[in-house]
Amino acid sequence: MPVASSTLNELTRIVGNDAVVKSRAGLHVYECDGYTLEKACPQLVVLPADTAEVCEVVRLLSDSGIAFVPRGAGTGVSGGCLPAEIPVMIGTSRMKRIRRIDLAERTAEIEAGMVNLDLTRAVAGDGFYYAPDPSSQNACTIGGNIAENSGGPHTLKYGVTVNHLLGLEVVLPNGELLQLDRTPGRPGYDLSGFITGAEGTLGIVTAATVRLLPSPESVATLLAVFPGVLEASRAVSRIVAAAIVPAALEMMDALVIEAVEAAYKFGFPADAGAVLIIEVDGLACGLDGHCEHISQACRDEGASEVRRAADEKERALLWKSRKRAFGAMGRLAPDYCTQDGVVPRSKLPEIAERTAEIGKRHGIRIANLMHAGDGNIHPLLLYNGEDSAEVARVLEASREILQACLELGGSVTGEHGIGVEKIGLMTESFGSEEIASMSELRSVFNPRGLCNPGKIIPDSRACVEVTRPRPRGGG
Amino acid sequence: MPVASSTLNELTRIVGNDAVVKSRAGLHVYECDGYTLEKACPQLVVLPADTAEVCEVVRLLSDSGIAFVPRGAGTGVSGGCLPAEIPVMIGTSRMKRIRRIDLAERTAEIEAGMVNLDLTRAVAGDGFYYAPDPSSQNACTIGGNIAENSGGPHTLKYGVTVNHLLGLEVVLPNGELLQLDRTPGRPGYDLSGFITGAEGTLGIVTAATVRLLPSPESVATLLAVFPGVLEASRAVSRIVAAAIVPAALEMMDALVIEAVEAAYKFGFPADAGAVLIIEVDGLACGLDGHCEHISQACRDEGASEVRRAADEKERALLWKSRKRAFGAMGRLAPDYCTQDGVVPRSKLPEIAERTAEIGKRHGIRIANLMHAGDGNIHPLLLYNGEDSAEVARVLEASREILQACLELGGSVTGEHGIGVEKIGLMTESFGSEEIASMSELRSVFNPRGLCNPGKIIPDSRACVEVTRPRPRGGG
Repeated sequence: MPVASSTLNELTRIVGNDAVVKSRAGLHVYECDGYTLEKACPQLVVLPADTAEVCEVVRLLSDSGIAFVPRGAGTGVSGGCLPAEIPVMIGTSRMKRIRRIDLAERTAEIEAGMVNLDLTRAVAGDGFYYAPDPSSQNACTIGGNIAENSGGPHTLKYGVTVNHLLGLEVVLPNGELLQLDRTPGRPGYDLSGFITGAEGTLGIVTAATVRLLPSPESVATLLAVFPGVLEASRAVSRIVAAAIVPAALEMMDALVIEAVEAAYKFGFPADAGAVLIIEVDGLACGLDGHCEHISQACRDEGASEVRRAADEKERALLWKSRKRAFGAMGRLAPDYCTQDGVVPRSKLPEIAERTAEIGKRHGIRIANLMHAGDGNIHPLLLYNGEDSAEVARVLEASREILQACLELGGSVTGEHGIGVEKIGLMTESFGSEEIASMSELRSVFNPRGLCNPGKIIPDSRACVEVTRPRPRGGG
Repeated sequence: MPVASSTLNELTRIVGNDAVVKSRAGLHVYECDGYTLEKACPQLVVLPADTAEVCEVVRLLSDSGIAFVPRGAGTGVSGGCLPAEIPVMIGTSRMKRIRRIDLAERTAEIEAGMVNLDLTRAVAGDGFYYAPDPSSQNACTIGGNIAENSGGPHTLKYGVTVNHLLGLEVVLPNGELLQLDRTPGRPGYDLSGFITGAEGTLGIVTAATVRLLPSPESVATLLAVFPGVLEASRAVSRIVAAAIVPAALEMMDALVIEAVEAAYKFGFPADAGAVLIIEVDGLACGLDGHCEHISQACRDEGASEVRRAADEKERALLWKSRKRAFGAMGRLAPDYCTQDGVVPRSKLPEIAERTAEIGKRHGIRIANLMHAGDGNIHPLLLYNGEDSAEVARVLEASREILQACLELGGSVTGEHGIGVEKIGLMTESFGSEEIASMSELRSVFNPRGLCNPGKIIPDSRACVEVTRPRPRGGG
């Protein structure tokens, strides 16, 4: 049902004419996020300037019974902000102010549309940073990070978004504003923690108070080269079982290395079957010992080479190779589909074997990126989107890999969320009692389901398998 | 209404005769927790041996419409497990098994009745520990810690219980069992996080999977002596603003020092106006530098002396003085009332001044313990319970101190929870919209309110001020 012209006029009055996107060309940008398998244009996008405008917009939509979906930068990779059958999108891109930085308290209050890395940039000069660092951190917003409870390579040591959250400002689906304090020990139920990771189904986060961490005195980044994924996986287990907490512990296999080497020319050995990127941080005086310990663990598991980034420039190039690996995959095949699953760390060798077997059986080349320290795998399934039989095999192979994650005691998403992509898998991950609880809990905040309908809780729209046109690049 | 004898028979059949406490003498133990201001005996206490028995007991009580309250070790200090008008208490004291320790994954799955410190004892030999360390850690249970989302002196660096939780096993108030996975990135709403800190109002936690941390390579503990609380508070701000994260940062004022010195004879200077206990941990090579930096910050704020615990024995005695300070307070007055509030760390000098002013105005001696690094204050109000006018002044002074915490941007509990003690303050801490949301959220899990009624959500029973007999020792 089209949004009534009276409603459009009201929305325009609230946010201003320049902040309502309604042309076909303008809306095109908003038809999908980093999950490009499904696309759908909203009827219009409004871009409020501040929290008061968000409240007014949401109240109007709520009063009119019009569904809406919040969106940050659109870097999500599971279609969490896909406006399928949702008429209005509310974007936070104009809300990127820093409200308060308090270095004595080590906190910052920022608006939801602020880009993740901009917060670190704002405090780096004083020796602080914001820890959660998704690969998309130079584009993704804090609000989107909260919706997805995002992590990043440094999750292993520093935890995910919720671990750094001290308060939320949330516009409820009826337009009311909640200010939630989440300092440790605060009384009552942890509503902020509950809203975090809810993929925008409980309200629109407009601002957050987050913890700032002192920058580590020193950082060392190692590259370890292995004959294959199995050996590298075993090294991960060995490193994690020792009493060292690396800041990051990432794996790339031969196919990923081939692509990123072509793109960024770091100088990975041509014959590497897999590499680990291992970072340790802390006091300068301790890093040599940690590096030696980790190097030995890698060599014990068959590493042919372990080298330490010589300087900040080399370290930056190594991380660029890792963080922009997705972007380099286009060199290997016309299309690829990023999967996202979790297994217990000790099961990494097993999931690597099973992924390889699944790929072989279906005739699909699969590259492997892993936040290995967290047991979070990102198999990248390569294919040609023009070949519909191959597309079908990719979907089946994806399903089997996620099924294997569940069988090994893991889960069907590590960090990318459910979105529209995996809503059909919710019933495989949870019992009906739990899903019923989640549905009832959603109803407390979002009783009419107007706020981001069709996400998290499986309903009649959940048959994404049959509506999927074809898989294409992840993010 | 008395529990029907048929129900009693059924409960006895489920848990066995020895595991039902119904004699007046036996029930006496369960009439209160560490918050001794209110007492109430349950009609009976059942002590299930395992999760299956908890399910059966809860199902029976639910089917019979009988309210129940879970209890761990009863070390809580806000009356969270007070069985006021609740007929049946379900104790977890027999459920203390370790189900699984996985050092490669750095996790442990333990039953809810396990004593906090016993978990660390079980893994210490392998170089690991469980981080949350309430002062009562040699008695309190993991289940109780989850109910209260407990912290401890090391919360400053390592966070509270929820930060270490990877999964929960929960018996819902209807007797159904939920197994909740909380590994980072798991999909769906964070039900485990939501249940943590809910003070047993959403179900009974029967087991948990928690994170184990590698023991720090080295620890240094400093004692800094100040002329008064103001100077010590300013030193806290200075230390926290520097790029060091102490593992703990605790304050005791002159009255507390007097009591603990009499009890444990650590050797605190007789003229100390306040002391800070500051612990740093990490690599041995870095601790000297940290200690020097912290010592300088203390001296800059007027510390007359900063000394480092010479060995593990001296360090243990220093921590004993701090952790058992509550127990020593009886030396100063016949009775005392422990308060628990939070202010932003930068407001510590201000709350110290206001607390002193409030005490002076009401003629009440107030000793001060603080988890200073977290801004968590524990004023101890000394009085004689035989003097009813003094009791009234203690209650009024307590109220004013908590009011001051709110005015300074803090909250009315730092870690002790709401329990029965502070339920009347919930409406001062939250808007009606938030309390309504909490109440609806509780109803999702606990629709008939049979599980720990009267807690968290203020209702008709909330007028604790008028029902309070008289304040006595906290915990």
